[in-house]
Amino acid sequence: MGRPFLARLGANENVFGPSPKAVEAIRSAAADLWMYGDPESHDLRGALAAGRGIGVENIVVGEGIDGLLGYLARMLVEVGDTVVTSDGAYPTFNYHVAGFGGVLHKVAYKGDNEDPDALFAKAAEVGAKIVYLANPDNPMGSWHKGADIVKAMDKLPAGCLLVLDEAYVEFAPEGTAVELDIEDPRLIRMRTFSKAYGLAGARVGYALGAADLITSFNKIRNHFGMNRSAQIGALAALNDPDWLAQTCANVAAGRTEIARIAAQNGLVALSSATNFVAVDCGADGAFAKAVLDGLVTRGVFVRMPFVAPQNRCIRVSAGRPEDLKRFAAALPEALTEARSQPA
Amino acid sequence: MGRPFLARLGANENVFGPSPKAVEAIRSAAADLWMYGDPESHDLRGALAAGRGIGVENIVVGEGIDGLLGYLARMLVEVGDTVVTSDGAYPTFNYHVAGFGGVLHKVAYKGDNEDPDALFAKAAEVGAKIVYLANPDNPMGSWHKGADIVKAMDKLPAGCLLVLDEAYVEFAPEGTAVELDIEDPRLIRMRTFSKAYGLAGARVGYALGAADLITSFNKIRNHFGMNRSAQIGALAALNDPDWLAQTCANVAAGRTEIARIAAQNGLVALSSATNFVAVDCGADGAFAKAVLDGLVTRGVFVRMPFVAPQNRCIRVSAGRPEDLKRFAAALPEALTEARSQPA
Repeated sequence: MGRPFLARLGANENVFGPSPKAVEAIRSAAADLWMYGDPESHDLRGALAAGRGIGVENIVVGEGIDGLLGYLARMLVEVGDTVVTSDGAYPTFNYHVAGFGGVLHKVAYKGDNEDPDALFAKAAEVGAKIVYLANPDNPMGSWHKGADIVKAMDKLPAGCLLVLDEAYVEFAPEGTAVELDIEDPRLIRMRTFSKAYGLAGARVGYALGAADLITSFNKIRNHFGMNRSAQIGALAALNDPDWLAQTCANVAAGRTEIARIAAQNGLVALSSATNFVAVDCGADGAFAKAVLDGLVTRGVFVRMPFVAPQNRCIRVSAGRPEDLKRFAAALPEALTEARSQPA
Repeated sequence: MGRPFLARLGANENVFGPSPKAVEAIRSAAADLWMYGDPESHDLRGALAAGRGIGVENIVVGEGIDGLLGYLARMLVEVGDTVVTSDGAYPTFNYHVAGFGGVLHKVAYKGDNEDPDALFAKAAEVGAKIVYLANPDNPMGSWHKGADIVKAMDKLPAGCLLVLDEAYVEFAPEGTAVELDIEDPRLIRMRTFSKAYGLAGARVGYALGAADLITSFNKIRNHFGMNRSAQIGALAALNDPDWLAQTCANVAAGRTEIARIAAQNGLVALSSATNFVAVDCGADGAFAKAVLDGLVTRGVFVRMPFVAPQNRCIRVSAGRPEDLKRFAAALPEALTEARSQPA
């Protein structure tokens, strides 16, 4: 529309921003950008490994989870290979799978949750090479206990890899992250500095898994692909757990406020373990789209799920108080407008 | 060795650094890194297009030339496709070609120059889908006139794409860059902010070519792969032509100084159109390696070509006066040491 949004609540960004220590580290590194970044991300991987009691050979750093999902598809997906995912979940991996000639099988949500049991049963049924599961889920914000996912993994067929996207896990209740022997060959986990650490624009993701699998990324990744100051900033962010805790508290307060605003307007906000909330607009996808359009017209950027019946919702980031004030002001008008439209 | 190099002259980095305006822009953008970068790199592509009188649809921005070469290989190389390159030239594209099952044919240098006539004749002979040529060349620093490359392109077989890597072209004499109708389907050119613009650590490359080819990158590239402040910094660097001119003058002075130091030690520095100089150590690859090791031991980081007879040289970046002073101090000792080793 040729002007910035008044409230940017649609891209799952963390409006509370990165640690001031990360900002300062990135500023200090700016004049050194004539040097390439470390192709091995040695310091960052070392810190991540030490924090988990695993080896650096169990961690690969890449250009966001999207970049790592692309590498993973390139490594593993051959023409005709089958991959199982949830219908309506985060779609980027699907694009890569299709691009390499893989065959996608989609499993429906169960309620508003991805359904590990059904996903893994489908994987067994079709002899899948890979299953993709996001926990917590985007776009719905729902989640499973890590232990329940591990239990469900018994159903995975032999040789099948679970790609577990934990992009939002720092926002989730204790026990959401999967705990499993890092060398278990059935699992690779994806993590990021884009969400809880507030560095979406820096492009720093990482994958955790068995050394054999992780090492094989080195055959194909863009070795000098990591921005130097992003590596430095991510390390500084990792070393500021207080800021992370404060961010998670801010996000939790934002989720509560979104739920309050929704209720005030007669709508239901779904429980969320992420930094966004799916708000059920109470009708179909066309109605939710009308509400979304009304919000966007009023300078409040939100998005919505792609697939029915989840597309009865709009997805709103847990913003700062001033962002949510704008959302609160715009929502009643957007709802009135949407209700006045011919069905 | 557990300590930083005294002079970092081996990675083809630009030690004169980025424009202070770029540094300032990157610093100013640091706190905004919670936002994703523009997936279309709209402002940067717009400025690049305007400067060339071409359309934004003729430019794709990516995570360095290495990243773009990887995308290009993914787009074009199928199992059994043939690709022609120079034996001993920049190898990254080769890795991608091999990774996608392509078959590489290598053509020898002619003297210390890549040989466009021989490359394109070989392409015709083997029915190549792609030819890779760097102009100016890495690792030798040699170059051809753009017009001569265009003339040689008459030999390309029908349907063959020339990937022309112009990473160093801003350092080269007027007339080195290829001038050709941007919609000519035989050519894609690779450019970067890593070299003359001094932003190697930012990872910003771009490709110039026919709209059809350039647009097809969108099917497979990592759409949110670009660091936000890198986009902003590259744009600021582009808008500071005075700094670029000063850098090129500094680099030219550095090349002259390297030639002087080489001559002082009885060695010959090859002519260079880049920000590094290949210094002929006057014997074979083993001797050059001994010289290189002696420099590295003394804290002066340099590299050398992989393939004979180019591996009789060491490759030295056109550093600052203080860097080259260290090189000048270390070289005689490294040479003496190398000459005292048993053959």
